[in-house]
Amino acid sequence: MIDLDRRNLVAMSLLAPLATLATGSSSAVAQENKDHSSHMYMPDSTVHWEGNEQIAMLMYPGMTVMDLVGPHCMFGSLMGAKIHLVSKTLDPVTSDAGLTIIPTATFDTCPRELTVLFTPGGTDGTLAAATDPATLAFMADRGDRAKYVTSVCSGSLILGAAGLLKGYKATSHWSCRDALSGFGAIPTDARVVRDRNRVTGAGVTAGLDFGLMMIAELRSRFYAECTQLVSEYDPQPPFHAGSMKTAPEKVKADMVELLAGFTKKAEELGRTTKKI
Amino acid sequence: MIDLDRRNLVAMSLLAPLATLATGSSSAVAQENKDHSSHMYMPDSTVHWEGNEQIAMLMYPGMTVMDLVGPHCMFGSLMGAKIHLVSKTLDPVTSDAGLTIIPTATFDTCPRELTVLFTPGGTDGTLAAATDPATLAFMADRGDRAKYVTSVCSGSLILGAAGLLKGYKATSHWSCRDALSGFGAIPTDARVVRDRNRVTGAGVTAGLDFGLMMIAELRSRFYAECTQLVSEYDPQPPFHAGSMKTAPEKVKADMVELLAGFTKKAEELGRTTKKI
Repeated sequence: MIDLDRRNLVAMSLLAPLATLATGSSSAVAQENKDHSSHMYMPDSTVHWEGNEQIAMLMYPGMTVMDLVGPHCMFGSLMGAKIHLVSKTLDPVTSDAGLTIIPTATFDTCPRELTVLFTPGGTDGTLAAATDPATLAFMADRGDRAKYVTSVCSGSLILGAAGLLKGYKATSHWSCRDALSGFGAIPTDARVVRDRNRVTGAGVTAGLDFGLMMIAELRSRFYAECTQLVSEYDPQPPFHAGSMKTAPEKVKADMVELLAGFTKKAEELGRTTKKI
Repeated sequence: MIDLDRRNLVAMSLLAPLATLATGSSSAVAQENKDHSSHMYMPDSTVHWEGNEQIAMLMYPGMTVMDLVGPHCMFGSLMGAKIHLVSKTLDPVTSDAGLTIIPTATFDTCPRELTVLFTPGGTDGTLAAATDPATLAFMADRGDRAKYVTSVCSGSLILGAAGLLKGYKATSHWSCRDALSGFGAIPTDARVVRDRNRVTGAGVTAGLDFGLMMIAELRSRFYAECTQLVSEYDPQPPFHAGSMKTAPEKVKADMVELLAGFTKKAEELGRTTKKI
C-alpha cells in the first residue's frame, strides 16, 4: 500500500489518463505536470516518481496521429516531465486521418536541450517533412544533443533524412523499413529497436510498446508497470494479421501492392538524401 | 494481387494511416474520405471497400485522448465513412494529458442519424461530462437511434448516465467497471463486450481491439485484417502488467489504492443517476 503523500504524488502525475483521481482537479494536475514543481519531489530511493524530462514530439501536416498519441499516452504518465508538441508554427496541424491538434511549441521556442526527441510517421506528409529544410535543421540540431533520439513508424525516415541514423540499427513501418539503408542505417526487423541512444518503433501501434520501454528506461520497470496497468495495456487483437509474419497471404499481397508506391518513394528519399 | 482500380480505391481510403500512398495527395484523399464520393464506389461483391457510415466521437475537456485515438485510428480506414469529432462548441478541447484537439461538429450540427455513437473516457472530466445536461441530452438523443452505441474506458459511465446501458452487459476501465451496475448495466469483465448494439471496450488501449472489431462488424473480417496489417497491430508489451489478472501484486495494490477516489466517485455517480 502507499501512504497519502506518495498517493497524491502518483495521482498527480503517474498516468495522465487517470492522473486527476486523488486531487479532484484536472487543471491543477495539468499545471503541476507542466511546471514539474520542485515541491512535489519525493525522496523515495527505490522508485523515481519525480523527474524533469524535456520531451519534444514533432508534429507536421499528414502525420499519423496514432504514431504520436501511443507514445504520448505513456509519456503523459511521467510526473514532472514536460511534453512539447513541436511544429514549424503554432498553427493547428491536421493528421492524415483528419484529426487536428494544436502545437505547444515551435522550432524556435522548443528547448534546446532535450531528454527525448521524437517523431511520428505517416506517408506523403512524412516524405514532405523529410525534405523540408527547416524541419531537418530542427531535428538535426536537437538530435545532436538529445539524450534519446526516437521515432515510431515511418518517422524513422525523418530521422534518417536528418542524418541521425548513420551507422545505427533502426526499424520503421514494414513498408519502408528497408529504405532506411539509404540513410546509412541498418534496417532491423523488431517491434522496438534500440541502438545506443536511438530508439525506433515499428508501424503505428508499436508506439505503445515503444512508450512503455521508454518509461522503464527513463524511470523504472515498476513505474512502467504502473503505467501499463492504468492504461490497461493487455492487448487482445481479434485477428492475427498485425505483421508480415502472421497476416493471411491475401491480406499481405494486397497491402504490399497497395503500399508499393510509398515504398518506392521512401527508397527514392534515401537515395536523394545520400547525395546531399 | 489487386487491380489498379481497387488499388486506388483502397489506397484512398482503407487505412488512413497510409491512405495517401497510391494517389500522392493527402489533401485529395482527405477530401474524398470526407465526401465519401459516390464515384468511388466499386462493385466488389466479396469485399465492401466503400461505405457511408456516419460516426460521431464525443470530445470533452479532460478526456483521455488515447481512448479517442485508438478507435479513430481504425475508423479512419473506412473508405466513404464520415467521422465527426463532436463537442458542445467548436472550441478546442484539451485532454487530461494536455493534448488539444479541434472539434469538427457540435451537438447541434452533428447528424441526427448515426451509424456509430462513441465516447471516450477519462477521470474527473468524464464525471463532469456524465453530469452535464447538454452532453447527456445529446448522447441520449443520438444513442436512441444510432445503429451502434459504443465507448472505451470510463466512457461507459457517460453511456450509463445517459440511460443507454439499462439491462445491457458492458465493460469499462477496471477501476470503475463495477460502478456500471448503478446505471442498471451488467458489469462484464472482458476486453470488449458486445450486447446487442452496445459495444464497450475496457481501459484506454482497449480502443484498438474495440476498433478492429467494429471494422469487421461494419465491413468484413478481411477489411479489418488489412487495417490491422497497415497499422502493424502486432502488440508486444515489454511487461505483463496490463490487467488485474497479470500485474504484480505491488503494482495492483498501489494502483487500486491510487484510483480508490475515482472508483468511489464513479459509484456515487451511479447512485445519483438512478434517482433522477
